[in-house]
Amino acid sequence: MSKRERRSELTYRGAGVDIDAQDDALARIKKHLDSTRVPGVLSEIGSFGGLFEVPDDVERPVLVASTDGVGTKVLVAQRAGRHDTVGQDLVNHCVNDVLVMGARPLFFLDYLAVGKLDPAVAERLVAGVAKACRENRCALLGGETAEMPDIYEPGHYDLAGTIVGVAPRDALLDGRRVAAGDVLLGLASSGLHTNGYTLARRVAFDVLGLGPDDELPGCGRSVADELLQVHRSYFPSLEPLLGGDALHALSHITGGGITDNLPRVLPRGLDARIRLGSWSVPPVFETLRRAGGIPQDDLLRTFNVGIGMVTIVDVRAADEVASTLATRGESCTVIGEVVRAGEGGGRRVVYEGRLP
Amino acid sequence: MSKRERRSELTYRGAGVDIDAQDDALARIKKHLDSTRVPGVLSEIGSFGGLFEVPDDVERPVLVASTDGVGTKVLVAQRAGRHDTVGQDLVNHCVNDVLVMGARPLFFLDYLAVGKLDPAVAERLVAGVAKACRENRCALLGGETAEMPDIYEPGHYDLAGTIVGVAPRDALLDGRRVAAGDVLLGLASSGLHTNGYTLARRVAFDVLGLGPDDELPGCGRSVADELLQVHRSYFPSLEPLLGGDALHALSHITGGGITDNLPRVLPRGLDARIRLGSWSVPPVFETLRRAGGIPQDDLLRTFNVGIGMVTIVDVRAADEVASTLATRGESCTVIGEVVRAGEGGGRRVVYEGRLP
Repeated sequence: MSKRERRSELTYRGAGVDIDAQDDALARIKKHLDSTRVPGVLSEIGSFGGLFEVPDDVERPVLVASTDGVGTKVLVAQRAGRHDTVGQDLVNHCVNDVLVMGARPLFFLDYLAVGKLDPAVAERLVAGVAKACRENRCALLGGETAEMPDIYEPGHYDLAGTIVGVAPRDALLDGRRVAAGDVLLGLASSGLHTNGYTLARRVAFDVLGLGPDDELPGCGRSVADELLQVHRSYFPSLEPLLGGDALHALSHITGGGITDNLPRVLPRGLDARIRLGSWSVPPVFETLRRAGGIPQDDLLRTFNVGIGMVTIVDVRAADEVASTLATRGESCTVIGEVVRAGEGGGRRVVYEGRLP
Repeated sequence: MSKRERRSELTYRGAGVDIDAQDDALARIKKHLDSTRVPGVLSEIGSFGGLFEVPDDVERPVLVASTDGVGTKVLVAQRAGRHDTVGQDLVNHCVNDVLVMGARPLFFLDYLAVGKLDPAVAERLVAGVAKACRENRCALLGGETAEMPDIYEPGHYDLAGTIVGVAPRDALLDGRRVAAGDVLLGLASSGLHTNGYTLARRVAFDVLGLGPDDELPGCGRSVADELLQVHRSYFPSLEPLLGGDALHALSHITGGGITDNLPRVLPRGLDARIRLGSWSVPPVFETLRRAGGIPQDDLLRTFNVGIGMVTIVDVRAADEVASTLATRGESCTVIGEVVRAGEGGGRRVVYEGRLP
């Protein structure tokens, strides 16, 4: 694992860096890394860099890379003392980001920065990363654990990572195939995924004055259970559609909501018409809207409101795609369509109706 | 640029997230990204992921990836109010890490996490990243800027990044070519590079009670000038040796010093014999040693003590390699050789003499 060698600064303990803890964390992490090995991985832990052979079965291979963090969802994890989910959030978020370009994941590297290294916590965090890597057939190729007592408070950490995926050049998805009449299939999210947490934390912890174990009103579960739901990966469900004619584009609904993310794959001259009310909005969003006094437009630009991925498909294939996705366990709804934009329009989301 | 789209959480400003600042930072950053464009880059800012075509002139291409941070060198930058160097440190460190595997850099992605987003500071940081990317002919393909007021204090930031390089499989460097009699050529570092900063800060700021603009005793320059020297990239000098017969291995001297890093490329049964005193140790290390009361062994496992990269070369080619590197501006010294290990030994550094 790239720089996860032991840092042997012998006088560092007094300065707040604990070498024994680093050795312990490294030993605990190694088995999780090993569990993610896939064909292509050449390197072993301790090397200066992770090695991955470019697959030889991809025509004109294009690498698709993305770096992301988990944002302040880590603060919910820290407050709840649950550290095994945010690593999954991180990987799944990144997998979805390369998936929407038409790529399948190859490998992942994580960056974990802590105030004081707790080997058990570091292990839970990396275990989460490794679990999601396995689920997406993605190697955890390396990473860095940095102990920086003067930047992070004890008990605090930040978690970020980088994914590299691959797609044949001709199968890249960039929105060019999108046409008027295309159907928008919304795939259900699992809670907030990783966006809107600064606002959600304010509402849950400050406005409502709840603790992590208190029930979140209307949700039938605790604040921690609701807010730490794992960001879903849509790769297992959508992989069979990659490279096919039916799939015209994908949009991962992250920060900015449907309002800002869907236009990123719309060509000039086309809008997306979305029927609010056509899908069932999970209660957490209504709870946050009410308690936070958030207007509908703001809600739609802050949260995914129940749709984590929008699949843009050829109208002739829509029924078949929808039923195939349903058999793969996706909750899949026609939420609108691509339409020709009016005068001065284009690359916008036009909402009809209201959220239920 | 992957997730560097605008985050449109309209009620976020009150919660500490400033959308105008994000738009401003994004606009400032874009030109620096564009300045790093190299053949292979397919994507534009705003896309979900960065795209890079696998070069078609590399036989059996192997991707070499590494994630790293700058450690607490960022605290020196923050204290000195100089933000244009740590991005260079980050990229050059990562470039060296894939270089020692035999790879040339393809692309880089950065992760910048801040307490409060100051667009001018973010621009300086990314400008540093982009400058080093250009110098190493490496694309800055994406990145993430995260504003997390509840994790980082105002004025504080953390900077990390991921590099992906490529090498032909047959030209990978993994230490297997290293043999007894090989010559160790040490290439000069520029100051501390990015390691030992928790200790160096304690000594400079606490033990010696200096500020960033005070002169560091014995160094003839200020604490900030000395401690913010840019971590060198050895790629421009060493690239012509990649894939050749003369070069047997490379070791990047980072955390753990020569003591811990050189063994990573030594095969079983071989030691590295290093003659202390054979190279000139920059005064900063003597200043830190004295003021911090650091024993020589600890110094050698904490700092690079003047050698940033060890080049292990065939004895028959050593003179030619050394003079070629000298013509490229490297300060290059024979610091020892690879020897057969004694009973129970191997994969160790054996020091002779003492540091001057």
